[in-house]
Amino acid sequence: MSKPILIVGSGPAGLAAAHALASVGQRSVLVEKEQRLGGAPIISGYAKLVPSGEWARDAIGAMVSRVEGSPLVTAHKGAAVTEFGGAPGAFNVRLSNGQALEAGAAILCTGFTHFDSVNKPEWGFGTFPDVVTTTQVEQMISTGKGVRCPSDGRKPERVAILLCVGSRDRQIGREWCSKICCTVSCNIAMEIREELPDCHVYIYYMDIRTYGHNETYYWRSQEEFKVKYIKARIAEVTSDGQKLIVKGEDTLVKRPITIPFDMVVHAIGMDPNVDNKSLATTFGVALELHGNIAKGSAYGALGETSRAGVFVAGAATGPETIDDSIAQAKAAAMAAFALTNQPVQTAAA
Amino acid sequence: MSKPILIVGSGPAGLAAAHALASVGQRSVLVEKEQRLGGAPIISGYAKLVPSGEWARDAIGAMVSRVEGSPLVTAHKGAAVTEFGGAPGAFNVRLSNGQALEAGAAILCTGFTHFDSVNKPEWGFGTFPDVVTTTQVEQMISTGKGVRCPSDGRKPERVAILLCVGSRDRQIGREWCSKICCTVSCNIAMEIREELPDCHVYIYYMDIRTYGHNETYYWRSQEEFKVKYIKARIAEVTSDGQKLIVKGEDTLVKRPITIPFDMVVHAIGMDPNVDNKSLATTFGVALELHGNIAKGSAYGALGETSRAGVFVAGAATGPETIDDSIAQAKAAAMAAFALTNQPVQTAAA
Repeated sequence: MSKPILIVGSGPAGLAAAHALASVGQRSVLVEKEQRLGGAPIISGYAKLVPSGEWARDAIGAMVSRVEGSPLVTAHKGAAVTEFGGAPGAFNVRLSNGQALEAGAAILCTGFTHFDSVNKPEWGFGTFPDVVTTTQVEQMISTGKGVRCPSDGRKPERVAILLCVGSRDRQIGREWCSKICCTVSCNIAMEIREELPDCHVYIYYMDIRTYGHNETYYWRSQEEFKVKYIKARIAEVTSDGQKLIVKGEDTLVKRPITIPFDMVVHAIGMDPNVDNKSLATTFGVALELHGNIAKGSAYGALGETSRAGVFVAGAATGPETIDDSIAQAKAAAMAAFALTNQPVQTAAA
Repeated sequence: MSKPILIVGSGPAGLAAAHALASVGQRSVLVEKEQRLGGAPIISGYAKLVPSGEWARDAIGAMVSRVEGSPLVTAHKGAAVTEFGGAPGAFNVRLSNGQALEAGAAILCTGFTHFDSVNKPEWGFGTFPDVVTTTQVEQMISTGKGVRCPSDGRKPERVAILLCVGSRDRQIGREWCSKICCTVSCNIAMEIREELPDCHVYIYYMDIRTYGHNETYYWRSQEEFKVKYIKARIAEVTSDGQKLIVKGEDTLVKRPITIPFDMVVHAIGMDPNVDNKSLATTFGVALELHGNIAKGSAYGALGETSRAGVFVAGAATGPETIDDSIAQAKAAAMAAFALTNQPVQTAAA
């Protein structure tokens, strides 16, 4: 029997890789730094996922259960890989919990880090308690507490969602688009309107990037839920003591706009995982320009890193959707399985 | 040995699936309706692909060579599946070339159909010879002939690229976004400027959706290549006998704009494959709302169709990028392989 395959990270990608390997009888060892499996959707308490509309705890929770119930997957929670040596087919691995093991290959499913809004101070996060992030609103919804102003617990009557916080912004060294925040924000806007039908929800945007079939979110949010869209360049978020004030320039009518809100939501982007430098050192893999794990050509080397036998999938390579992370993880699992289970060459019939 | 896996369609997805299966020793039968392998990038003569920047004939050509050189892949060109019966593990397949075979599973990699611009007649395609599609410009570039006005072969001095032709347009029954046309158009604009440095290139857009790391294309096209962007709603494309005239409303300055051009390029979207109805009948799989092949949940049933043992990947399910089509195809290959090669259950160590 071949050695197990090491999977680092148990978000949607890591869970998908472990399941795919188990489905072909291949053992894997799943190493997760948190105390529970599930990655960002579970740890950060996401509400309904896009584009499926399923609750994260159900959708990703089922992926967790499937993996935890598999006799072919050994999970180490609250653990990290501290040493990784050897060669494809026979890597030597040591974990922070003292365990040592051999692995035939490794798949890095180490994901991303949410942008920290304190790095965009002029937009009020960290200064005003009612300036929150999309992740915080997801938590308000998923816990059942509802969308409330943190300062005093009141139901907001006016909410502004600011897109591209930590994305498409060279001033703070983040020129990439984070792919999913537009669709997530359309979804959150509809969820707020559903819970609080009297609340006015505005989305401030540069471009609305509900690409592919996500376009449905854009239409529905306007037509069924009356979400309002303002194409604007935002200058600052301040307070008049009563309300939050969003100041900017409406780029459609080319004039300054100043609008009061009860709550301002930062649609935060996806940063490279803060652990990437140490992961790169431990595993001996290269990072790309922005600090994500560098990946091979999709045409010939999908899922490969700069080191033979070490694969990568999902948001570890840059902003990625859950669905695409899962597909990439299964593709990487296929490649790792092929590497560690050299086929008997057989002529086609 | 298990029966071969049937793969329908030999674009990037079909080629990736065949290669992935061969890499684990699994035979496949690849059925392609055209006389050569490669799908849209080869058949339609694409130029440089996004986001890799590699020429389609090199990148996809290498995928074709790899599959054609594999003893585990049997390819039938100029052929279609005419009958498909049986059950997972033992499907009975008949091809239009008279061949009959058994297959353990099937993967539909049947792709999309380019939007036909004659269905948007007010934008001049089919009326004026110098109104062309992105596919035609790709061919001008990939054949080495260069970008020329079809009417008289002259080098255009002014080119307009119109985004969202056949996308985000309910008037013609296509409300989806086609995902890739924005990035492809940024790329084509730069290629035109590179070949014809004196040519002015304008892109008419609703939103620029260069999502994820494709954002680089948007920045570079403006900064290095001086491509001009106009946010506009287009009314019609006419001619004054000398020039093509693009009439519309600039939605940033809220006034009518009428600009003359030598060439107008329709950035055409991705329609469901025109064969989908007959494919659905032959394979007994359901279609979704818009006529694409309906796909299972990414969380638990990625790549599955409504029929057990029949999988799907890539643009057969809706607008998709080449890179994601390849990942999905490998994921589907993994699922098909798992189905047809039931693992020996082994307890984890």
